[in-house]
Amino acid sequence: MAQKPGIPKGTRDFSPAEVARRNYIIAVIRKQFELFGFQPIETPSFENSSTLMGKYGEEGDRLIFKILNSGDYLGKVDDKLYAQKDSLRMTANISEKALRYDLTVPFARYVVQHQNEIDFPFKRYQIQPVWRADRPQKGRFREFYQCDADVVGSQSLWQEVEFVQLYDTVFTALGLKGVTIKLNNRKILSGIAEVIGAKDKLIDFTVALDKLDKIGEDGVKREMREKGIAEDAIARVQPLFGLEGTIADKLEQLSGLLHTSEEGKRGVEELRFICDTIAEYGLQTAVLDLDVTLARGLNYYTGAIFEVAAPAGVAMGSIGGGGRYDDLTGIFGLKGISGVGISFGLDRIYLVLEELNLFPEAVTLTSRALFINFGEEEARYGLRALMALRKQGIRAELYPDSAKMKKQMQYADKRGIPYTVLTGENEIREGHYTLKNMETGEQKAVTLQELGAILSGT
Amino acid sequence: MAQKPGIPKGTRDFSPAEVARRNYIIAVIRKQFELFGFQPIETPSFENSSTLMGKYGEEGDRLIFKILNSGDYLGKVDDKLYAQKDSLRMTANISEKALRYDLTVPFARYVVQHQNEIDFPFKRYQIQPVWRADRPQKGRFREFYQCDADVVGSQSLWQEVEFVQLYDTVFTALGLKGVTIKLNNRKILSGIAEVIGAKDKLIDFTVALDKLDKIGEDGVKREMREKGIAEDAIARVQPLFGLEGTIADKLEQLSGLLHTSEEGKRGVEELRFICDTIAEYGLQTAVLDLDVTLARGLNYYTGAIFEVAAPAGVAMGSIGGGGRYDDLTGIFGLKGISGVGISFGLDRIYLVLEELNLFPEAVTLTSRALFINFGEEEARYGLRALMALRKQGIRAELYPDSAKMKKQMQYADKRGIPYTVLTGENEIREGHYTLKNMETGEQKAVTLQELGAILSGT
Repeated sequence: MAQKPGIPKGTRDFSPAEVARRNYIIAVIRKQFELFGFQPIETPSFENSSTLMGKYGEEGDRLIFKILNSGDYLGKVDDKLYAQKDSLRMTANISEKALRYDLTVPFARYVVQHQNEIDFPFKRYQIQPVWRADRPQKGRFREFYQCDADVVGSQSLWQEVEFVQLYDTVFTALGLKGVTIKLNNRKILSGIAEVIGAKDKLIDFTVALDKLDKIGEDGVKREMREKGIAEDAIARVQPLFGLEGTIADKLEQLSGLLHTSEEGKRGVEELRFICDTIAEYGLQTAVLDLDVTLARGLNYYTGAIFEVAAPAGVAMGSIGGGGRYDDLTGIFGLKGISGVGISFGLDRIYLVLEELNLFPEAVTLTSRALFINFGEEEARYGLRALMALRKQGIRAELYPDSAKMKKQMQYADKRGIPYTVLTGENEIREGHYTLKNMETGEQKAVTLQELGAILSGT
Repeated sequence: MAQKPGIPKGTRDFSPAEVARRNYIIAVIRKQFELFGFQPIETPSFENSSTLMGKYGEEGDRLIFKILNSGDYLGKVDDKLYAQKDSLRMTANISEKALRYDLTVPFARYVVQHQNEIDFPFKRYQIQPVWRADRPQKGRFREFYQCDADVVGSQSLWQEVEFVQLYDTVFTALGLKGVTIKLNNRKILSGIAEVIGAKDKLIDFTVALDKLDKIGEDGVKREMREKGIAEDAIARVQPLFGLEGTIADKLEQLSGLLHTSEEGKRGVEELRFICDTIAEYGLQTAVLDLDVTLARGLNYYTGAIFEVAAPAGVAMGSIGGGGRYDDLTGIFGLKGISGVGISFGLDRIYLVLEELNLFPEAVTLTSRALFINFGEEEARYGLRALMALRKQGIRAELYPDSAKMKKQMQYADKRGIPYTVLTGENEIREGHYTLKNMETGEQKAVTLQELGAILSGT
């Protein structure tokens, strides 16, 4: 019996219209990456398990897709271990490779492995799929693309400035106006924890703070209490909930709050440099904002933290994020290489553009014309014109069978092909073509040259 | 201790220069696919194992990468089965997903699953990686791209004609002149087997014939003998080794040889239609040839068989191939859908273009200019110009640190960046920029407008 076809949960087929739209977003991002001096690399879909495991925490390890070894993989497993029937312990013995979980760890591995071929600072971008064995839900998939740009090998804050500009430029180019680029700095978070006397609770403190959007001020305080942060420390956090005004105002308030913390003061200085520079140049359509509650995988970032929110009124989580991480390559043996980077969330950007109807019409790649097939001689005559049109860069096709005209017309219609070309005895004798506009129904006899001009829209 | 970084055997990292070259080839192929009316789809990297297993023969099943189930995958395995410690039987119990082995089976699955949304004939292209647990060797990888174009839903031979033209057009656009497009037809092979009385040995017969290039006429005959093909049948194959002259000549000889086989005669007719039509239109740079020894996975193809050989003098196997397959979607429950398609071998095309030095220089994506960083004020001044240049579509970057000038110049040099821009006190005061040509060493003061004109090459 034939199998009922389906695909694994959390994965997707993309139709021609969807691929065209995804490729449009990718092309815009890629173009701006390149204008900003980033160069593409690609890494293998699977890495040695040892490269990935232990880099994303226990939860991450669990969500990494493991690839079964080939051949008689059980034959190599020790009998005693085998008898335990312990999945967790077995995995390392029957699987040596795993699917990429993000693009950052493979990038770190790449930098270390190829350090002698790379000229630092190394500005690379990478647009490839990643895989996570997460529970699938709306907008969360088991296979999805990441679009990352990172620089490694320099601590200069100019890079943070340029990343803010890059976000602004990409979203402007996509016609998505009014995104908010939220900025924070790990040093601010550390400084606050220090000042309130909760330095040892930095992670609990920031995880709670990060939830302000979702659970509100009271919720954050409740969680801090639950995590054992002292009541007087929580009281001292109070000013954070009341930060108001312009970025400069907020920085002023923070500066006062953090004046006893060296690290906090450095954080304020860094933010001030970035914000002042951006203010001087201005942004095209995005808005920069300071958000001291922003944490995004705090264990990872060491300086700037970025997150992009969709324009007001669009219910969507972050559509991009990133930050600075010192010493990422240290895990692979190359110390002292600072990196900073940002990522674009392709799937969410797609949903936002769709919701706001921002995809250009020309994104679809349907043929401009379908040549109707009336039989061998007619097809032969039509194909010759087709060849000439394609040489002019015009997408066009011949209906392969001499089916009923109605069927062929319906095909053009359903596919959204704007023109059909009819070539019968008359056309062949007179050396011209009958062009039909599928929208208006208008027909007219044209020469090959006119055909090319009309179809190319010139 | 830090891990020594590496990647799994048979996989590759691609450097910026390599990605740029690969993307160039893909862009050329994609453009022509679209001009010919094909539309892109994408399918998930992994499919349900049941979709893939059993579709590529026993050897194929072995070479498919299987993905280990998540969680306590051993907990669900029956104790009795577990006790057998049999890898082959265990696999189906601990792995439900597998990495795509080619693009054809996922395409067949796609067509059946989405048949109600598709307008037939459906012309799709697909450019995605596939994975095979093959023994890695020169030019053979465990992860590689396939670039496929197929039409399903029509038996028209115009499609075969267009695929020959598509091959010619793509290789012409890549500057790769003189490829040979070899053509055969499964019906010819069946007809021969019928005529020589070896119909029941069709596969053995064609597998042997397919090796003519490698083992010569005597080798082919020896293999046929070993496979139990009768001596008088082998003697009757003799004319095949002596086919000579133009395609028309060869067809004439085949026609005589096959006059008692209905299927063989149909094969000759099909080939004649394709070859006559191509002869009438002519090809741009490719050469069409008839090769009756061409088999390429005979069990699969039912009509035309294509294979493309690199130009004479380039030692490389086929750089493309394809053919017609009836009823591919039958395995997923949709009968009577004929398909025909071709594939481009990205990796081999890359090697051929490299060997013949055919990559355009402009393929690399290095920045056009590096702004030298002399300090904060200078960088601030330079970044403003950078923003304007990028808006004009010029790739440019700022060296992030105010390092020694020599270091920055060396960086531009190593990266192959053709210009540097120097902005010091003087430049800021006078509102201009000093542009240095890194090849000639020439320096001159220019305005922002002149800078844009020179860097964009206008």
